[in-house]
Amino acid sequence: MSEANLAVSAHEVSSSIDFRRRLRERQQLVTRALDEQFPPGSGPLTAAIREAVLADGKRLRPILCLEACEWVGGSLKAALPAACAIEMIHKMSLVHDDLPAMDDAETRNGRPALHKVHGEALAILAGDALLVHAFGLLASIRAVPAERVLGAISRLCQALGTAGLAGGQALDVLSQSEDVTPEKLDHVHTWKTASFFEAAMVIGAEVGGADASQVEALARYGKLLGRAFQISDDLLDARDVKALAHGEATNYVQLHGVDGARRKLRELLDQAVSALASNKRGALPLLAGLAELVWERSWRPAEGPHGNDT
Amino acid sequence: MSEANLAVSAHEVSSSIDFRRRLRERQQLVTRALDEQFPPGSGPLTAAIREAVLADGKRLRPILCLEACEWVGGSLKAALPAACAIEMIHKMSLVHDDLPAMDDAETRNGRPALHKVHGEALAILAGDALLVHAFGLLASIRAVPAERVLGAISRLCQALGTAGLAGGQALDVLSQSEDVTPEKLDHVHTWKTASFFEAAMVIGAEVGGADASQVEALARYGKLLGRAFQISDDLLDARDVKALAHGEATNYVQLHGVDGARRKLRELLDQAVSALASNKRGALPLLAGLAELVWERSWRPAEGPHGNDT
Repeated sequence: MSEANLAVSAHEVSSSIDFRRRLRERQQLVTRALDEQFPPGSGPLTAAIREAVLADGKRLRPILCLEACEWVGGSLKAALPAACAIEMIHKMSLVHDDLPAMDDAETRNGRPALHKVHGEALAILAGDALLVHAFGLLASIRAVPAERVLGAISRLCQALGTAGLAGGQALDVLSQSEDVTPEKLDHVHTWKTASFFEAAMVIGAEVGGADASQVEALARYGKLLGRAFQISDDLLDARDVKALAHGEATNYVQLHGVDGARRKLRELLDQAVSALASNKRGALPLLAGLAELVWERSWRPAEGPHGNDT
Repeated sequence: MSEANLAVSAHEVSSSIDFRRRLRERQQLVTRALDEQFPPGSGPLTAAIREAVLADGKRLRPILCLEACEWVGGSLKAALPAACAIEMIHKMSLVHDDLPAMDDAETRNGRPALHKVHGEALAILAGDALLVHAFGLLASIRAVPAERVLGAISRLCQALGTAGLAGGQALDVLSQSEDVTPEKLDHVHTWKTASFFEAAMVIGAEVGGADASQVEALARYGKLLGRAFQISDDLLDARDVKALAHGEATNYVQLHGVDGARRKLRELLDQAVSALASNKRGALPLLAGLAELVWERSWRPAEGPHGNDT
């Protein structure tokens, strides 16, 4: 299948009723599983975590993990704890990001940021505990050989540490007052977002029993989708010209313009879907559709009630 | 061996030259391994982590982990990554504890707190990355079966999450303005300190290839030593009468008096050493000596140059 054909069929998928239904089912599956992890009435720390985790049910990253598992023929049941762990880590990064010392965000997805409701101390601890619970959940996976689970944890840690999410955040925090080059921005995008998307796919693949070439293909899809996602984020941010003028120097649109950003976005998404098409299983409709959703979100009008965190 | 005899021999051990030399060797072993984990010249985030991890070389918790491994006949080499992970997590908790939103500490062990040197954002990220690297290091252990490693990670996560370290910190943060009962204080002590000491022992035991009864004995020693350590901490804090009057309501000495605290401390330490004596291997000199060190530190004069963080 050519790349042009893939893009067309991906668009057909993303607007189909089947795709939307399947997406909703996956979202609900993850949300229910998270809900059970942090039962109500378990004290103030768990209450704060519960709020952070249950808010915003789009669940993009855990769905990537589930789909990667299914793509290699694994069962959803095996991947669900891993998917929940991925979402917990994502929410942990948002909670810590929103802190006054970091992005100093007042709101998240149209609701007060966690530290605004529960105070900074509880927000810091909620993030720490979320990270711990995520690893605990991964370590509890028994549906696949223990070596595979350890391998998945190792890969995840690489994506989250000093040469991953935390390193990317640090680079982002420290580079606000400096000139940002295109290379540096790619670096930040990869560390902050693409590595984590990649890890979500790899973990899903590992618990699904993938072979090395399947892991490779899914990792490539994840990394490309992650870079695309970050550019779509920057396109959304660029709608707000005032914010852009206010020193948001780490924005792809500032460096490459709106047209340049959109061209790159389309290119990355097509490459992502192609990465899967080269494998004999092809791109599962949902993975192709998800890539298309990232394209569509970059066109979202500015007056939407929700934030960027698809 | 009776408890009275154990206490006498433990004191002899703790003041012996052999014990002091062995302790120093273990400290240096852990410090060298940590030094290799975070090489200099790897960017500002790693530099901040390096400072946090290399400062204060007492290494009590990782040494517990190493000794537990040796007690069951395991090799130091197998336990060293686990011991480093334990120390990274300990340092992470200190870095986040010291933040303005938490304890708002200006100094740590006589040096400026990490956020005072590198800013709050980098201190938050350094803590997050330390937690991640600790789990990555644990997941890399191949000297024992993968199931054992996963079991150790699970146990550690229990000790760190909402019903462990993070939960204890939250309880501590939230209860400063309330009346603290003896039961609640025991709860905070167990969650904040004893569970982590216990986990350090259990992980050492697991990577050493312990059987269930050995794990049980070492866990009991760790838990009792942890509770004792927290009381010795409170005795140290109580030297500063001004700080105590200033609402430090979560202090054992305020609830039970200096004599009551010291009696309980002695009782817990003797029980800790007995927990190991009941096993046929007996208490290794170093584990008995470490218990005695906790006793000795509670008598430390107020004008020492270092903080409480033995």
